[in-house]
Amino acid sequence: MEVYLDNSATTKPYNEVVSTISDVMLSVYGNPSSLHRMGKQAEDLLKECRAKISSTVYGTPDEIYFTSGGTESDNIAIVGYCMANKRKGNRIITQATEHAAVLETFRFLEKNGFEVVYISVDSDGIPNMDELEAAVDSNTLLLSFMYVNNETGAVFPIEKISALAHSNGCVLHVDAVQAYGKFHINASRLGIDLMSISSHKIHGPNGVGALYVKKGIRLCSTMFGGNQEKGLRSGTENLAAIAGFAKAAEIKFASMDADCEHIKKLKNSLITQLKADIDDVVVNSPDNSVCSIVNISFPGVKSEVLLHVLESRGIYVSTGSACNSKKNKFSYVLSEMKLKNNIIDSAIRFSLSHFNTQGEIDYVCEVLKKEIPILRKIMR
Amino acid sequence: MEVYLDNSATTKPYNEVVSTISDVMLSVYGNPSSLHRMGKQAEDLLKECRAKISSTVYGTPDEIYFTSGGTESDNIAIVGYCMANKRKGNRIITQATEHAAVLETFRFLEKNGFEVVYISVDSDGIPNMDELEAAVDSNTLLLSFMYVNNETGAVFPIEKISALAHSNGCVLHVDAVQAYGKFHINASRLGIDLMSISSHKIHGPNGVGALYVKKGIRLCSTMFGGNQEKGLRSGTENLAAIAGFAKAAEIKFASMDADCEHIKKLKNSLITQLKADIDDVVVNSPDNSVCSIVNISFPGVKSEVLLHVLESRGIYVSTGSACNSKKNKFSYVLSEMKLKNNIIDSAIRFSLSHFNTQGEIDYVCEVLKKEIPILRKIMR
Repeated sequence: MEVYLDNSATTKPYNEVVSTISDVMLSVYGNPSSLHRMGKQAEDLLKECRAKISSTVYGTPDEIYFTSGGTESDNIAIVGYCMANKRKGNRIITQATEHAAVLETFRFLEKNGFEVVYISVDSDGIPNMDELEAAVDSNTLLLSFMYVNNETGAVFPIEKISALAHSNGCVLHVDAVQAYGKFHINASRLGIDLMSISSHKIHGPNGVGALYVKKGIRLCSTMFGGNQEKGLRSGTENLAAIAGFAKAAEIKFASMDADCEHIKKLKNSLITQLKADIDDVVVNSPDNSVCSIVNISFPGVKSEVLLHVLESRGIYVSTGSACNSKKNKFSYVLSEMKLKNNIIDSAIRFSLSHFNTQGEIDYVCEVLKKEIPILRKIMR
Repeated sequence: MEVYLDNSATTKPYNEVVSTISDVMLSVYGNPSSLHRMGKQAEDLLKECRAKISSTVYGTPDEIYFTSGGTESDNIAIVGYCMANKRKGNRIITQATEHAAVLETFRFLEKNGFEVVYISVDSDGIPNMDELEAAVDSNTLLLSFMYVNNETGAVFPIEKISALAHSNGCVLHVDAVQAYGKFHINASRLGIDLMSISSHKIHGPNGVGALYVKKGIRLCSTMFGGNQEKGLRSGTENLAAIAGFAKAAEIKFASMDADCEHIKKLKNSLITQLKADIDDVVVNSPDNSVCSIVNISFPGVKSEVLLHVLESRGIYVSTGSACNSKKNKFSYVLSEMKLKNNIIDSAIRFSLSHFNTQGEIDYVCEVLKKEIPILRKIMR
């Protein structure tokens, strides 16, 4: 049996997405900027995709900018906003467990004269709101907070954060890469000014994402060229991938509620079985975590060892975010939550999709029930 | 009949490229940064693709960085080099007919304190070498010159330019997007330090390209995140598109010489027939222009009108570069060549691929032979 439980790293594309991409590549291969009919045909499809994506965040088509993915969306939002609005303030605020695409971008701006504040998180991984309230001042330009943490699934109180941002006259960017397609996000109702979303986390292709930019928000471009995407993101539009992204969004948002109910059942079953069958199982994800992610520690079993034992049984999980897994042995997210070392170094992220089945979860539990006691004995 | 002669804007992908992308999306969908077997499988494929692309420019795999396309490659090369090597000099030099991805990036750096020199071109569109020689000084950091002009096909004397760069201790970036796949480019033998290439101009997918970075050249990253591509280009690797790019390169480089001979014959046939059958046909491309591009004026017929007449007959051409066609009525490239207004405003770029046939070219000539005199009469 093969069980893919690394869906927060990347997802298997829908078959319909793959065929959409093939169809577009073979039949709508004109450059959307070309003046002739084949260009127009490509431009029309691009327009249709933009409308589809905008509807999934309850926005308008002119608020959607296609990018090469979540990382680029985060970069454009943060650097683009700070560079365009420097004179409004110099302080920018994020929190300690953001994705590297946000943290490293903040570090870049810090080196370039911005005053950066990193808010700490509590043991559930939720940013300390008192600390945030104290940090936001009249000199604050931008807040950047993820919606869902990629390692624990913790859901952040975005509505509260946006209220705080706006009452202090600053702008909120939300990295919604792990939230998008898991629950409804009405960007304008939530008071989100800038929002990053990605295709390959919702069974769409890699290499494409979008940035939602609320009407009226001004950004500098960070890449220069032919002024595609209203000058914000130059470069020939990646039409086939954009069409694949739109197709994935169409399927995902039509089935999202049912998918998430299914995924939640599997996640609860995983937690319940593991707790019942194995001693000393510690769930690091908070109760309100997103349906798709659960982070679990098996103290006494190093997570990397367990990862490889599981892969030998056809089960694919991760020890943290894929982006950081090759560099850092331990998760900075769990460290920031002040978890004990034996919890951090035995943590596994299980990230589910609607493609997973109860049979797969039962198999995973069975394998863990058998292997954990053996590994604990060996490693003692 | 449908005749696609806008291959410098974008090309129709090879069927094998489309099926490679489908196969990879469905079977190698792991994240190359994931630690498990599916991640490893993705990483291995990425490695294989990097080796394939590196061999096409006679480089080594560690000199190839995958990007989201030609525009991003240009941006990373120019901004990344200038930011990393500021203390070595402040002057950067390019020429007047570069692609917008280079020109706009230079303008950005100009606004940020760099001294920028734009070398003029002669009536063939070739940069004035005396002017360049006079401009390069000990304070010069970087030269950026395209290999082939995208509107005229003019081939630049890259070897001479690189010799000049190196004898003055500065570095040469080459935008080779229109040259790649048209003739052999041995980057190191030519003395190229940084080189941009793109997939969708060689019948590969959109949204992917590469930057060749000669060993020892140091660049700053311009996008921040998970440190993929050795930190130069963060963001989950766009594996399916990269595999499609590598497949396109594999096919193209196996058939390049034969393809170009075929394309050259078609181009010569187009020129010869038009000159023989129509009065006052002006070829704006120099004799040594790349096989795939010819820029031709039909004085008295506005190019946009002709473009639409041709599209009504199933023939797709362009008036200039796709990236600029929607904003500027007239080609800045032809203006910089100091061509007369009646030549500039009647110019059409025909850009060919090996998919084109003699029958298609004959049809295009027949249509033009019939339409040009009619249009000239109407427009007089």
